[in-house]
Formats: sequence, structure tokens, C-alpha cells
Amino acid sequence: MKAAVFYGPRDIRIDQAADPKLKDATDAIVRVTHSCVCGSDLWSFRGMSDRKKKTVIGHEFIGIVEEIGAGVKKIKNGDFVISPFSRSDGICPECLAGISSSCRNGGYWGEGGYGACQAEFVRVPNSDHMLFKVPKNKTSKKLMPAFLALSDVLCTGYHAAVCAGVGKEKTVAVIGDGAVGLCAVLSSKFLGAKKIILLSTHPDRAKLGRKLGASDIVSARGEKAFKAVRKLTKDTGADCVLECVGTKESWKTAFKIVRKGGRIGWVGVPHDVAPINIGDVFGENVGIMGGRAPAASYIPKLLPHVLSGELSMSGDVFTKTIKLGDIQKGYEAMDKRREIKVLIKL
Amino acid sequence: MKAAVFYGPRDIRIDQAADPKLKDATDAIVRVTHSCVCGSDLWSFRGMSDRKKKTVIGHEFIGIVEEIGAGVKKIKNGDFVISPFSRSDGICPECLAGISSSCRNGGYWGEGGYGACQAEFVRVPNSDHMLFKVPKNKTSKKLMPAFLALSDVLCTGYHAAVCAGVGKEKTVAVIGDGAVGLCAVLSSKFLGAKKIILLSTHPDRAKLGRKLGASDIVSARGEKAFKAVRKLTKDTGADCVLECVGTKESWKTAFKIVRKGGRIGWVGVPHDVAPINIGDVFGENVGIMGGRAPAASYIPKLLPHVLSGELSMSGDVFTKTIKLGDIQKGYEAMDKRREIKVLIKL
Repeated sequence: MKAAVFYGPRDIRIDQAADPKLKDATDAIVRVTHSCVCGSDLWSFRGMSDRKKKTVIGHEFIGIVEEIGAGVKKIKNGDFVISPFSRSDGICPECLAGISSSCRNGGYWGEGGYGACQAEFVRVPNSDHMLFKVPKNKTSKKLMPAFLALSDVLCTGYHAAVCAGVGKEKTVAVIGDGAVGLCAVLSSKFLGAKKIILLSTHPDRAKLGRKLGASDIVSARGEKAFKAVRKLTKDTGADCVLECVGTKESWKTAFKIVRKGGRIGWVGVPHDVAPINIGDVFGENVGIMGGRAPAASYIPKLLPHVLSGELSMSGDVFTKTIKLGDIQKGYEAMDKRREIKVLIKL
Repeated sequence: MKAAVFYGPRDIRIDQAADPKLKDATDAIVRVTHSCVCGSDLWSFRGMSDRKKKTVIGHEFIGIVEEIGAGVKKIKNGDFVISPFSRSDGICPECLAGISSSCRNGGYWGEGGYGACQAEFVRVPNSDHMLFKVPKNKTSKKLMPAFLALSDVLCTGYHAAVCAGVGKEKTVAVIGDGAVGLCAVLSSKFLGAKKIILLSTHPDRAKLGRKLGASDIVSARGEKAFKAVRKLTKDTGADCVLECVGTKESWKTAFKIVRKGGRIGWVGVPHDVAPINIGDVFGENVGIMGGRAPAASYIPKLLPHVLSGELSMSGDVFTKTIKLGDIQKGYEAMDKRREIKVLIKL
């Protein structure tokens, strides 16, 4: 099969690789129909992560089940399925507690003997737990981007909103206008937020943000942005701040714009974030919750709302579609921020 | 009037001070009937805080309204009232959001022109908001310690539980067997927790902890304590960890015994706590919420449950009663951990 391989910074190539084979009785082989490039893949592309050279890459995919192991009961050949972006077993205490992203027997794609999914086929473990079937009469072409968003960015944006305690009557500020930030806007709208402020300095992203539910756009950075958010929240700060970037600057912004007693829901993979001195926030009562989203727990909860149309606009974060062979161009387009998120149609 | 004065480490004396007088129209003068010594006062007593010498001290009190300003509407002379341990105005956005402990016009007792309350009288600002009346037919002598606990420790223990997300079916671990930790146990029981583990190496405190609702006691420290909690939680950790100490060691324990996806509710005033690197907990999804408890928001919510008996056992944290003149002995008894909490009967 064909698979994307990270050769080093700014060098992703398509190589020929062995087709994955069933190994465990609960495995399934999925033929990938759609994959995509993630903002977190860009850290590798930019040479800012410790990813080894000549390793497979990609963790978001949907596709069709080609083959199942003898122990698979719920999933069948030919099923159209959505996979979470990390592996989990569905039976450990963490999975049972709904935090599948901390599964004690889980891990990432491309590690632990598993392939990555900017590729034609993937072996999926614990497939009755890991794969979420879309009913056959619901697999419309139009919804494919939204199904793919469920694999990661919609669940991740939703996690930010849940962790920040978004709900009715809440004022929300979203830091990050990438695919996750935009999905965080949509999720906040879905959860009933009263006011949704998106911090965005890119007019095209801000426009999409408004479409997804943002009531206000703050198109400034630093001190100006803090002031603008405080003005929009009557000099109080936002009840819920959704941190969808993961940098020192985005965290500084989060603390500056959250109200006292408010919550920061964070999902941006942290890069060089300054340590938090708990003594500094004793009087502020700012809650900090977040981390890697438990997509396997969220997909079954959110899929009905993608099908109903409430969350189907998540597919709008894909602004370009490429073929697998054009993978390098896909990374470049996202790296240069020419595109929000690049879909790979196999 | 008589008032306790901090002369320096290990030296608290009773001095003669001017009686407080009404200043603002919303002020009330309260004759203190019961006050107490707080664990946080001990930081000063031990010379580990930056409290200035010859300053008044004490922040927890209940008493009888002696005089009211022209603008006071709800509170009347002769009312028996409970006061929160910090000042707030009740009308700023923070107060309206329920986070009165972050009131933008508030502060501590003994600061900003206000007296402290290990004293005979106190001037209380915004008294319609700040003072909570106990109905006359409910002011039984037996409940006085529980009313006094509402001034701080019960609200603070409750805040730890709320911040950690305690509720039905939750497994809770409480770090700290002082008055706040014990009130956190009682609050967790009140909120419906399934299992409440108290970390306590003092048999008398552990015994009281069991009475207040602890289902399990871990009487170990360090690695042994971590292992014991993990064993009690089927190798998973607690859903909710209530950090009621505020030291480097207690925070280390909190991170060691919380389950992935769980929450640390913290109320111990932080002293030399190690900074938290958010990057270290991305995969763990551990939430961190807490700070100074908004007692003015909690007292009206909890008072009915003190009166009904559900939370009246909070008064049991007072293990000794002294006269104001014996204040130095009261501090010493708490410093040496001979008593859990010392009540001052005026």
C-alpha cells in the first residue's frame, strides 16, 4: 500500500509499504477513504518535535472495514466507520471512566506496532470499541468532512468546551482560529453559550468562525486583545476560555481574559508553556482543565448531532482537498496558513 | 475593647483597642460572641508569613448586631449573625457571579481600615450582603460551633469538594486532616460521594474523620500513602482529590493519587508549592480548580443544612474552647497539633 512517511523537517513523501494484516482476534483492517493533516503534524513538519525520521504519520481517518478478526462482533466488513485519533482498549478503568485518551493500554497511531493513517490501510485494535459505524443510509458524500472531523478536531474542540464548563448563559472566549478553535466555537454554540468571542487575526477564519457561532471577533493580539475581551465582557473576563493553541502566548492570553472563578479548558498540545504557580491564582479561583480529548468517548455522543445537522458544519474546517500523492503540498499549505485544514481523499 | 494583636512570631497578646464606629451607611457593628484560630493564622504565628508586627488578627466570627448604619435594610440590632472570612461588596460582577472571595472591592479583615475579629467588636461593611442572620428560634447553644464553622472552614472544605466535582458515585480522597480537611470529608458525604478516603496519620483526627463520613483512612505518608490510595481505588486513583494543606508535599500527593481525567479541588493556602508544568499532564487530563472559598456565596446555601443537622457536625472540629484572654495558649495548642481547632468564647 501507499503510506506517507516523515523523512525529516519539511519532507513528507509517499512510500510503498506492506499492507497491514490482522494480528489479534479483535483487530479490523480499514481501507482509509479520507484522512487529513493535523495542526499537531505541523510540529513535526517544522522540525519542532522529536519525531524520528522515516516514520509513518497521520492519526485522523474514516473508511471502510475490509477485514475483521475472529473476535469482532459489532463491526462487519463493508461498514463505513470513524476512528478516534488515539488507540484505547475500551475496558480499562480509564476507558470505563470515559477518559479513553488516557487508556492504560492505548497509544498513538504509528507507534506500538500500529501504522499511521495518512495511508491506504490501517490495522485497528479493539475494533468493536474503536470503530464507530455510520448507518449505511446516512453516509452521504456531503457529510464526509464532518465525519472526518469527528476523528479528532470536533472532539478536541468539544473537549475544550466541556473542560471549560461551557453551558447556557456562559460567555466564552476561544483562543485559536485553527480547525480545533473553530470546532470549539461550534461546540460552544451547540452547548448553549450566550456569547462566543473568537480571537482571530485572519479575516477568512474569522468569517468561518462567525458562521460556526462566534458572536464577536477580536482581531488583535497581546494587550489590545486582552482589553477588547474585557470590554466585551463588561470588564469581567470570560466565564470559559478555550485554549486551542498550546503556546506560552496563548496561555498568557487565557489567564488575562478569564474571569475570576472562571475556567480555562485547554486542548492545545503544550509547547514551551510557562509553568503555573498555583500561589499566584489562589485569590482568582481560575480552574484549569483539559488535555488530550477522549474521542472514543465523544464520537458516539456527537455522531447523532453531526447526522442531525447541528454539528455538521465542523466539516467546513476543511478548506482544501488533495490526493495522497500530493501530501507534501498539503503540509505546505497548512504550514503557510494558506489553508485551515487539508483533507486527503484516497 | 479587647483585641488580639500579633506582636511577632509566637507572641499574640490581648491589647486594649478603640471600639469600632460606624463609618459608611451600610456598616454594622457586631459584638463578637465566638471567634477562633485558623490554620492560616498559624503561618503568622510560626513566622512563616509576612504579617507586620503589632497588627490585629483573626478572620472568623459570629455575633450579635449592636448598631447599624442608616442604609442597612435587612439586618437589625440584636440579630444573631454569621460573617464570611473575607470582605466583599455583593454588587460587583465577581460577587454576582458567585465568586465573592474575588470581590474587586473586597479584602481581608484587619486590612483596609477594618479590624480583625479575635476581638470584642468588628465593623462590617456592606452588612446586608455580608451578614447572614440565624432565625432567633434557631440560635441554640449547641449549634454555635457549627455556625462559627460556616464563617470559614465548612465553606472552605465545601469549596474543595465543589471544585473537585464531588457528587454521587464519586470516589474522593481528602489530603489534610485539619479542620478544613475534616469539613471537606463532611461536605463530600453531604454531596453524595460513594467512597471517601481520608489521609490522616493522627488517630484522633482519623476517628473524627470517620464520624464525619470517611469510609477509609490511609494512615501513611509518601510512597506508602500513594500505594494505599491506589489499592483502595482499584489501581485507578480517586475521581476527586481535595487538597486542604497547601504544601509541596500535599500537591505531590494530589497528583499521585488522582485518577486520569479526575480533578484536584484545592483550598490550602499555597506555601512553596512547585510550579505545575501543563505539558506534563496533557495525557492525564487532570483538572485543577480551587482557591479562596467564596463564603458569602456559600453561607446562605449551607446554613439551612447546618440547621437541619446534615452539616451540624462541622462544629466537632472545635476541640477546645478558650477565653479571649487565653489567646496565646490557643495558638500554642494548635501549633503543637494538640487541638484541631480552638474556639474563642467571648
